[in-house]
Amino acid sequence: MEEQHIASAFDRDLEAIQARIMKMGGLVEAAIVEAARALETRDEELALQVRAGDKVIDMLEEQINEEAARLIALRSPAASDLRLVLSVMKISANLERIGDYAKNMAKRTVVLAQGPAVSDSTAALRRMAREVERMLKDALDAYIQRDVELATDVIARDLDVDQMYNALFREFLTFMMEDPRNITPCMHLHFIAKNTERMGDHVTSIAEQVIYLVTGERPEEGRSKADTTSTAVQEA
Amino acid sequence: MEEQHIASAFDRDLEAIQARIMKMGGLVEAAIVEAARALETRDEELALQVRAGDKVIDMLEEQINEEAARLIALRSPAASDLRLVLSVMKISANLERIGDYAKNMAKRTVVLAQGPAVSDSTAALRRMAREVERMLKDALDAYIQRDVELATDVIARDLDVDQMYNALFREFLTFMMEDPRNITPCMHLHFIAKNTERMGDHVTSIAEQVIYLVTGERPEEGRSKADTTSTAVQEA
Repeated sequence: MEEQHIASAFDRDLEAIQARIMKMGGLVEAAIVEAARALETRDEELALQVRAGDKVIDMLEEQINEEAARLIALRSPAASDLRLVLSVMKISANLERIGDYAKNMAKRTVVLAQGPAVSDSTAALRRMAREVERMLKDALDAYIQRDVELATDVIARDLDVDQMYNALFREFLTFMMEDPRNITPCMHLHFIAKNTERMGDHVTSIAEQVIYLVTGERPEEGRSKADTTSTAVQEA
Repeated sequence: MEEQHIASAFDRDLEAIQARIMKMGGLVEAAIVEAARALETRDEELALQVRAGDKVIDMLEEQINEEAARLIALRSPAASDLRLVLSVMKISANLERIGDYAKNMAKRTVVLAQGPAVSDSTAALRRMAREVERMLKDALDAYIQRDVELATDVIARDLDVDQMYNALFREFLTFMMEDPRNITPCMHLHFIAKNTERMGDHVTSIAEQVIYLVTGERPEEGRSKADTTSTAVQEA
């Protein structure tokens, strides 16, 4: 937002909502890291904590939506301010989805912990989750600072996450073909990998919102979709 | 919406946006049915058409968002009208996601068509997609007619879709364990099943919007999550 305006009731209300977004973002970042750690260390208790924590994230999204709607109704913001409020709602929806994926990872961790471990793929999953968490942190920083450069960087990094996912997909296929006993756990691990890749897509979507807010333009359509597994040929 | 109000500029604008939602809904319904048919009949050309058609769906979502934002900015709707406009944006976001899943089904169909068929599971997938398409049609009807009963029915039917998915998940696991050559195609088929199940979740979310619009209350939290596969025990 280039234009300057005197701190108004609108600004104060918006700041309160943005503070809530940051709180929500912090909880989601923690959920990603903890879910991945629980998976790697087979820590069922931590996984259960992540699952329980998702309720708070959902509640925050609901509050943000209500406050944003109230803000629009009360202050009738002009076009550019309205765009800001709508972006807050979109970002909170993205955060809520990312939180859901972390919860799902925790859910599958509890099941996986009951069986034997499949190689060291959970370490690769943790690295992938860690990268997504860093991207999310930067996307939220970019939002607060209206930093287009940082937002663009976040979008570029999603390609790495997609590539990590592609590598894991191949790895899981190989494990499954080697030993049928790997099939069930690998289905779960693969889900976790795919959901982590989707977290990256939602982070990208937050970064795109930042760019749209500052420049008024949407980043070009052909956005980094580098999950190539949907075209993986039949190899066995 | 219980209250009556005289047709105003706001109503006319909102009607125009709702007409666009219906158009979008029709395209998404067709995409679901055609993607599932292309999968079952191994019709690559039809699959390519579905993929291309998704661009129109995305464009409609963007238009709906812009028009809704303009409507809010111009008409400064009161609380209940604002809720209506925001629901339109949420519904179009749900439709866009469903369209994405149909596109993804079409993408995988092109790959699957290059290998041998895996049993008759694509017929089961088509039935599942068909049910989701019917639910979507009813959810949109419920929206237009503000029909809480129909919306509630749609939400209940999502349980059937979840159960169809659970059955397919077990089936794919069995196929993969029987013959490693089934692993790659079954991974794709399983993705398609999971995405179809997620389409059902988005339809449910549209139906929940309808209930919220009419009653002002959100359907209770414990919403039908009957995908039990994330807790499937290790069976091999």
